[in-house]
Amino acid sequence: MRHLLPLDNLVAALEKLPGIGKRSAERIAFALAQNRDGLARKLADALLAADEQVGSCSRCGSITVTKENPCSICTDGRRANGLICVVESAGDILKIEHSNSFNGRYHVLGGHLSPALGKGISELRVNELLTRLQPENITEVIVALGTDVESEATASYLAEILSSRNIKASRLAFGLPSGSAIAYADSTTLQRAIQGRQSF
Amino acid sequence: MRHLLPLDNLVAALEKLPGIGKRSAERIAFALAQNRDGLARKLADALLAADEQVGSCSRCGSITVTKENPCSICTDGRRANGLICVVESAGDILKIEHSNSFNGRYHVLGGHLSPALGKGISELRVNELLTRLQPENITEVIVALGTDVESEATASYLAEILSSRNIKASRLAFGLPSGSAIAYADSTTLQRAIQGRQSF
Repeated sequence: MRHLLPLDNLVAALEKLPGIGKRSAERIAFALAQNRDGLARKLADALLAADEQVGSCSRCGSITVTKENPCSICTDGRRANGLICVVESAGDILKIEHSNSFNGRYHVLGGHLSPALGKGISELRVNELLTRLQPENITEVIVALGTDVESEATASYLAEILSSRNIKASRLAFGLPSGSAIAYADSTTLQRAIQGRQSF
Repeated sequence: MRHLLPLDNLVAALEKLPGIGKRSAERIAFALAQNRDGLARKLADALLAADEQVGSCSRCGSITVTKENPCSICTDGRRANGLICVVESAGDILKIEHSNSFNGRYHVLGGHLSPALGKGISELRVNELLTRLQPENITEVIVALGTDVESEATASYLAEILSSRNIKASRLAFGLPSGSAIAYADSTTLQRAIQGRQSF
């Protein structure tokens, strides 16, 4: 076991995936090494195919097949015009699309402001957003970022820039998550749910 | 997003890894597609290298670099002779090695008896174990399987065969896990911890 260098390299690569720690990486590497159905090779092929055939949309920054740029959402004529939803990552688009609750187009910011990680404005795709406003006749931007401190700071910053350009900036509603009980809500969530209460 | 077939294939391959569900697989695939450091390619290379250079030891069934067979543990002269520890998978060997508590050699069974999954004696490396007994002068076999019903049935079955060949078969101690409190122990664990109590 001490000389399994090829597995060490695999563990190191697996560890870089989101949500995979050292132990999971070791378990996966061992499972792959013991698998007799060629799973390692299938996964490698899928990775290489994805690496080759998937790129990022030059307009919204989401992921798209390389030969389709701008992506299918950006060029979809059935989408509502003038409305952009700003998200942190392409994965968020998938979530919102699955919810069937939005019919505009998207813009991937590529993260949020994070002084600790040295991530400032220039690391986010803010300029790319601003250059879309006029040609696409954008009237409203929904800022759909997370509810942690750094994401909220990023959202406020964006709202400020957008307002100064007379673009309506809105944010997602705060409140209780669906299927949850009051007993499990923290006080900030409750506070915001009460502040944002709606009549029946 | 609807036409990202290369990612669909990647998600399908990732989902086959242990501990990775559909959502994790999607998150990982998206992260890989957005990663600009060539992580997908590095991971693919590591997978292909592991697939090519790592195989299983013809003696103990653990994993080993292909050009080293039997593996480094099987051929390690400093290991205690005559003592084999039977485990379900090669990953278990890593755990035991990390614990620095065993100095014999190993034998990978490749799972446990599982009528539900149609896994019988012939699917396990039992014969391979029996053929090792005489040439290696084995006197004791530690059966280090899990404590679920199927693993225990497998252990009892092995103990029976080994006893009939005058080999001492032992099992790991049952009891409270380290760092745990009585309050969190289930009654079977407590029962076994009391039965196996040791004097100070």
